[in-house]
Amino acid sequence: MATKKTDVLIIGGGPAGFTCATSCRNTYLDKKVTLVRRDKISVIPCGIPYVISSLDKVEDNVLGDKKLLDCGVEIVVDEIVDFEGNQAVAASGDKIEFEKLVLATGSHPRKPELPGAGLDGVFVVSKSFDFLNMLKQRIKEAKNIFIVGGGFIGLEIADELLKQDKNVTVCCRSCFLRAAFDPEFCALAEEELSKLGATMLDGTQIKELSGNGSVDGVVLTDGRKVDADLVIFGIGYDANITLAEKLGLETQNGFIKVDEYLRTSNTDIFAVGDCAIKRDYFARNQVGVMLASTAMAEGRLAGSNLYHLNVVREFKGTLGTFATRFGNLSIGATGLTERNAKKLGFNYTVGRAKAPDRHPGKLKDASMTVMKLLFSPTSHTLLGAQVAGGKSVGEMVNILSVMIQKGFTDIEIDTMQLGTHPLLTASPVAYPIINATVDAIVKSGWGEKN
Amino acid sequence: MATKKTDVLIIGGGPAGFTCATSCRNTYLDKKVTLVRRDKISVIPCGIPYVISSLDKVEDNVLGDKKLLDCGVEIVVDEIVDFEGNQAVAASGDKIEFEKLVLATGSHPRKPELPGAGLDGVFVVSKSFDFLNMLKQRIKEAKNIFIVGGGFIGLEIADELLKQDKNVTVCCRSCFLRAAFDPEFCALAEEELSKLGATMLDGTQIKELSGNGSVDGVVLTDGRKVDADLVIFGIGYDANITLAEKLGLETQNGFIKVDEYLRTSNTDIFAVGDCAIKRDYFARNQVGVMLASTAMAEGRLAGSNLYHLNVVREFKGTLGTFATRFGNLSIGATGLTERNAKKLGFNYTVGRAKAPDRHPGKLKDASMTVMKLLFSPTSHTLLGAQVAGGKSVGEMVNILSVMIQKGFTDIEIDTMQLGTHPLLTASPVAYPIINATVDAIVKSGWGEKN
Repeated sequence: MATKKTDVLIIGGGPAGFTCATSCRNTYLDKKVTLVRRDKISVIPCGIPYVISSLDKVEDNVLGDKKLLDCGVEIVVDEIVDFEGNQAVAASGDKIEFEKLVLATGSHPRKPELPGAGLDGVFVVSKSFDFLNMLKQRIKEAKNIFIVGGGFIGLEIADELLKQDKNVTVCCRSCFLRAAFDPEFCALAEEELSKLGATMLDGTQIKELSGNGSVDGVVLTDGRKVDADLVIFGIGYDANITLAEKLGLETQNGFIKVDEYLRTSNTDIFAVGDCAIKRDYFARNQVGVMLASTAMAEGRLAGSNLYHLNVVREFKGTLGTFATRFGNLSIGATGLTERNAKKLGFNYTVGRAKAPDRHPGKLKDASMTVMKLLFSPTSHTLLGAQVAGGKSVGEMVNILSVMIQKGFTDIEIDTMQLGTHPLLTASPVAYPIINATVDAIVKSGWGEKN
Repeated sequence: MATKKTDVLIIGGGPAGFTCATSCRNTYLDKKVTLVRRDKISVIPCGIPYVISSLDKVEDNVLGDKKLLDCGVEIVVDEIVDFEGNQAVAASGDKIEFEKLVLATGSHPRKPELPGAGLDGVFVVSKSFDFLNMLKQRIKEAKNIFIVGGGFIGLEIADELLKQDKNVTVCCRSCFLRAAFDPEFCALAEEELSKLGATMLDGTQIKELSGNGSVDGVVLTDGRKVDADLVIFGIGYDANITLAEKLGLETQNGFIKVDEYLRTSNTDIFAVGDCAIKRDYFARNQVGVMLASTAMAEGRLAGSNLYHLNVVREFKGTLGTFATRFGNLSIGATGLTERNAKKLGFNYTVGRAKAPDRHPGKLKDASMTVMKLLFSPTSHTLLGAQVAGGKSVGEMVNILSVMIQKGFTDIEIDTMQLGTHPLLTASPVAYPIINATVDAIVKSGWGEKN
């Protein structure tokens, strides 16, 4: 029952807490930073699906402590359960006194509310090391696996299961990846997973799970029954706000309210990552996006600004920059899709391009890149991008993300110097970021006539 | 001996001429654009080394005409040899009358001036289809191949020759890739090619080539002799300015003088690509960089601005954005190296980062990324970047190129939202663009002390 003293206490060891800690240490050289987390071992959240097949063991997906320790962050493994003034009270009974507090408490998987949801063999994807070890083992023993949810997690898990030749069924209420992509890109992902052998049930809802003690099947609302000895739900995550509520901080729709600098209603307390409210980049309304890219940017910003506002916020809101890969298809997006542009009331011009990501395209490892860009026809700024193709899609999306965040216009992109190389990129005459931009410029009726 | 009429005449079918033609057609909808080129078939210049091994035949490395034809550009295969007023005179005797003229005449390989340079089996790398067919055949028959020149072309050719298990020696006067990289990155490339089996002779000069009719060896200035049945010189390219001289246009140090908008001393005549003068991005002094990335940006800019200045130039000069790959090492750069920063008199801070390009790093196709960034310690803007790693280096360099061109500061980069994914990028906590930036920020003594 010791009482420790620290200057900055960070609760949560995920990416947001991690970068907030290092950023704080880099900025406030004399401040003591303590990071407290529940799990002895922090898993890399986005690596979770890959412990199933691509990685030999869950231990291979660990967010190491070296960088934290190297920059002098003290790590405490414990669970903060309450507060007494400026002291955090841990489950062990220990207390930690702080000057500044950062909540990086993350999120937890949403549980299904369905008949049969309590059967053995029905799981949500928790981020804990022990759970993942157990899940990996159960998957090995299973034959028919049913995944509920059409988001990234569900599809990434499906892709991994197919590598073990499981019978995989994935169902989602509307269209796969609907939140992030327009239908033509969603279809590419669905096709790829179908080709790999998954049964893809879009526009499908579940009525109940059947079984006696253990799950043995899934009953759909249309009456069909699918055999399943393992059911995995990837139906979203909810922010962990219990501690924020204990602190009396303001929340909004299940998230901790923060200002532009990640300060909660108590300005000595910051919140970063999944637990903090997210606002849309373009219209500033609340959104539910939970991504490492956002969490990290928030962690870095908050860490530098804990004592003074040293770093002016350069980003307007959550851009939702993301990429993933199923089978041989990488797919990524940043900013607005057409669907979201319409919903927010934006006028837009679409530019498209298609080109192999090597040149000439006959080079053996070439993948076809398909790109769709949205521009404001009046402001001329880039609003959104969707890309499908080979593994460089991960960095291509980042080029576009940077362009959106810096307010690039179509003509600015058109005059950019972008490098190309036969073995690494599309051809200079077909470079898709340029060519999709030119397509949008041409479509906007820009040309001069005599 | 026909006389044709066109509105815009573009001489040269390489990347600069190609994009200038499409860009002009997209901007000036009613203007007739004629592109005249010497070769029936245009090869993709940066793909030239890859016809040796990676591609089955030279025909696989062709810049197709489809895109030009689709947007209404007329292609004439002929060689312009002279001018009569606003008529271009072709070798066939045909004449083409124009309103606006674009010289995209490119460059030709520099020939060695050495005893034995005229022997059979001694080549420079010309960009013509027929030459490449011949060279591919000669390489097949050769055993000991000696490459002179430590630039990209020389090393890319060496890499390709090693795929055919040739005995490969490469020599250069100073250090390999010296123009584009700092010594630690040059060393990575040299090590990779050595590991693949090449004999790398840096700091080495050639005295003469030996042989009787055909080359049989290379004599170094230190007296050593290396057997060689084929010698390839990659010692640079010179701009093709003969036509510009016939037109009486101003030139400077072997390049056609152009203004910010690629207009020559006659404002109805533009010059783009390798033949046009290049200025350094940071100090605006003349440089000899010849890259497709620059040529394309110039082609697009000139094409839109032929009749009116429609598109304001957003780029300040040649950034030299480039990436290439030898064996399993991709390596790229944009902006200033330390060497160039010193030469130009820039003060700078170096930031470094190292991380696998997948996360966790145990994923099977992970490559280690090594990044070096240069920032101005006072302006805080990004000055230059060097990256080595896996195939995503090609697009990573473009992120950095875009950041330099838009004047990103260290703190802006630090607050950027950049996406990460296990199968496609480095980990969010190790993303090298961010982490090398943070390293530079920390080194600049930014932190607060009590």
